[in-house]
Amino acid sequence: MENFTFVNTTRIIFGKGTEAEVGREVAQYSRRILLHYGKNNIRKSGLYDRICKSLAQSGIELVELGGVAPNPRLSLVREGIRLCREKKADFILAVGGGSVIDSAKAIAAGVPYNGDVWDFYLRKAAVAGALPIGVVLTIPAAGSESSFGSVITNEEGSFKRDALSEHMRPKFAILNPELTFSLPPYQTACGAADIMSHVLERYFTNARAVDFTDQLCEVTLKTIINHVPRVLKEPANYDSRAEIMWAGTVAHNDLLSTGRIGDWGSHMIEHELSAIYDVAHGAGLAVVFPAWMKRVYTHNVARFAQFATRVWNVDYCFEDPARTALEGIRRLERFFTEIGLPITLKELGVKDDRMQEMAVKCTERGPVGNFLKLGRQEVMDIYRLAL
Amino acid sequence: MENFTFVNTTRIIFGKGTEAEVGREVAQYSRRILLHYGKNNIRKSGLYDRICKSLAQSGIELVELGGVAPNPRLSLVREGIRLCREKKADFILAVGGGSVIDSAKAIAAGVPYNGDVWDFYLRKAAVAGALPIGVVLTIPAAGSESSFGSVITNEEGSFKRDALSEHMRPKFAILNPELTFSLPPYQTACGAADIMSHVLERYFTNARAVDFTDQLCEVTLKTIINHVPRVLKEPANYDSRAEIMWAGTVAHNDLLSTGRIGDWGSHMIEHELSAIYDVAHGAGLAVVFPAWMKRVYTHNVARFAQFATRVWNVDYCFEDPARTALEGIRRLERFFTEIGLPITLKELGVKDDRMQEMAVKCTERGPVGNFLKLGRQEVMDIYRLAL
Repeated sequence: MENFTFVNTTRIIFGKGTEAEVGREVAQYSRRILLHYGKNNIRKSGLYDRICKSLAQSGIELVELGGVAPNPRLSLVREGIRLCREKKADFILAVGGGSVIDSAKAIAAGVPYNGDVWDFYLRKAAVAGALPIGVVLTIPAAGSESSFGSVITNEEGSFKRDALSEHMRPKFAILNPELTFSLPPYQTACGAADIMSHVLERYFTNARAVDFTDQLCEVTLKTIINHVPRVLKEPANYDSRAEIMWAGTVAHNDLLSTGRIGDWGSHMIEHELSAIYDVAHGAGLAVVFPAWMKRVYTHNVARFAQFATRVWNVDYCFEDPARTALEGIRRLERFFTEIGLPITLKELGVKDDRMQEMAVKCTERGPVGNFLKLGRQEVMDIYRLAL
Repeated sequence: MENFTFVNTTRIIFGKGTEAEVGREVAQYSRRILLHYGKNNIRKSGLYDRICKSLAQSGIELVELGGVAPNPRLSLVREGIRLCREKKADFILAVGGGSVIDSAKAIAAGVPYNGDVWDFYLRKAAVAGALPIGVVLTIPAAGSESSFGSVITNEEGSFKRDALSEHMRPKFAILNPELTFSLPPYQTACGAADIMSHVLERYFTNARAVDFTDQLCEVTLKTIINHVPRVLKEPANYDSRAEIMWAGTVAHNDLLSTGRIGDWGSHMIEHELSAIYDVAHGAGLAVVFPAWMKRVYTHNVARFAQFATRVWNVDYCFEDPARTALEGIRRLERFFTEIGLPITLKELGVKDDRMQEMAVKCTERGPVGNFLKLGRQEVMDIYRLAL
């Protein structure tokens, strides 16, 4: 086990009807906020009205900025920063999924910063402070509701980059599984792939003697594998929606990385896909992760065999553990297919003509990944395996 | 799944040599502290010197109060409060296990309070503020290093009671598994029973649809079951000491209770034992828990069968699930015996002549437990089953 520090200060408020508490939570920080959201779904569902009512009851004024798209754009972030400064909003309430939260984090960090917010994503500057952020989560997927990271797409040049700072970790996150009943099947499945990928990035590590966190990872994966097919059949199954939602947060609140060194190569490889083709992050991960696995499993066959036997109940092949390892990868692909996700670039609608460009951009700051360091050539191999 | 709120603000600093960071951590809060500890072990081991050196390097003055005994006493708490006030110490550093930490929490809450600190334990007053607390953990057991509870024994009348307050949660906890190499086998085993009991109190719940946290509980138990026998053979096995130490904190940091309603009856029943006979808390739990299980398992045979099959790999008996349930209890007893713990009051050196008195004291504030509410008669049954 590696030395580590761990704390996660986001207060989780979980359960039925909990969005009614949003006014009371926000009131601890602010009286004038930016309400940040995506499309108009939250108006149609009545969530918008319930949130505005709760905020009004706590005497909180709001400025609004909707329109966050998947793979949230830098241009909207800049508009949010301008708006907060102009209207003197000093808190950001993100109502939505990972894109809205990541956009809120970028705005929060940008408001008190004198330079350009993209500096943080280019590692030209570190976040020294940020407006406090709160979340009402509507999509279990990104884990951004209690994480310290934000991923933003710069449309000029199709760059998708992340920034990490403790200042960007939300103060609270309201998680009501009922709000996810209306998620379409494809978005539910993309969320599942995103959650699983957060666990897998941590699971495939070279750190040794990580028995406890291995098992924490395994049961988190099994929870998603068990409950996602159920909600695809019964979208309003509260019990399963709740299991998925809580597992989605735990998958990315850093408990599962304690004592380990995560990989994160697949995320980098997927970011290049999303940046150019604007594919859903979860769908991109469903394509990239199995390809990554096929490229790297020989680096530690035992670990992949453990994944296969413990997570997928594959019988261990004592004569040829590599067979077990490969069967685990096959089961993951089968699961993604069963829940309606693509597992090839072709299914994702991505051609093979810009792979070289993606591999170059992906590795321009050096090799990616930790389980196995991947240079441009290895990243190309993975795009090819994903065709 | 029940609605819940969850946050744990204790910063965990985990790994080899991490006690060297104590000065830097404390310096964020104070320049004059109370150093609180138990017996002289920390001097013999050199830990005391290393801590003093780190504190001195950060310019921190200290007042000392050692002598905390297992089942920490109210009289020493009162002395600590007096000392902090007199010497104007405004931070408490607990170096030790659960008893030292719980004593530190009581002192921390008592210093700014005008009345008697025991009021908090009688629920006559709520903790409205406390000095900040830091921990260097030397015994993985109580989970007090990141919990918001404190258990203190009032020698006048042999009362052992708890107080709960977010103000008492430590600011940081330094966990270096190396510091546990020198723990004697019996204390290591008592710690294991304490950790397991924290999980079991949460595991046996009437809350339904708690699949994810069930599994988190199960793997935490399995981690203890796998690694404790190893360190009994090899006390300086860092890997296993680390797994136990981290599992011990996670067992009681409230993640495993999210969405559930814990029982805590066995803890109440054990507290009466410790209060009168001054037995080690973990040893008392090893006696009480199997007896509690035998008394209550018929309330939910399926849950006890799940415990048996998932935690102990007992084959499920489809014809008679109660057999599986009972076999799980037997395996727990066998495990406790194998690691050198008592599983009967007799082995603990406790006679049967004060059981009535303990049952009365245990239930004087009403029935205990949630899985099954236990009145005086049921508590008596459990003491009898433990004979």
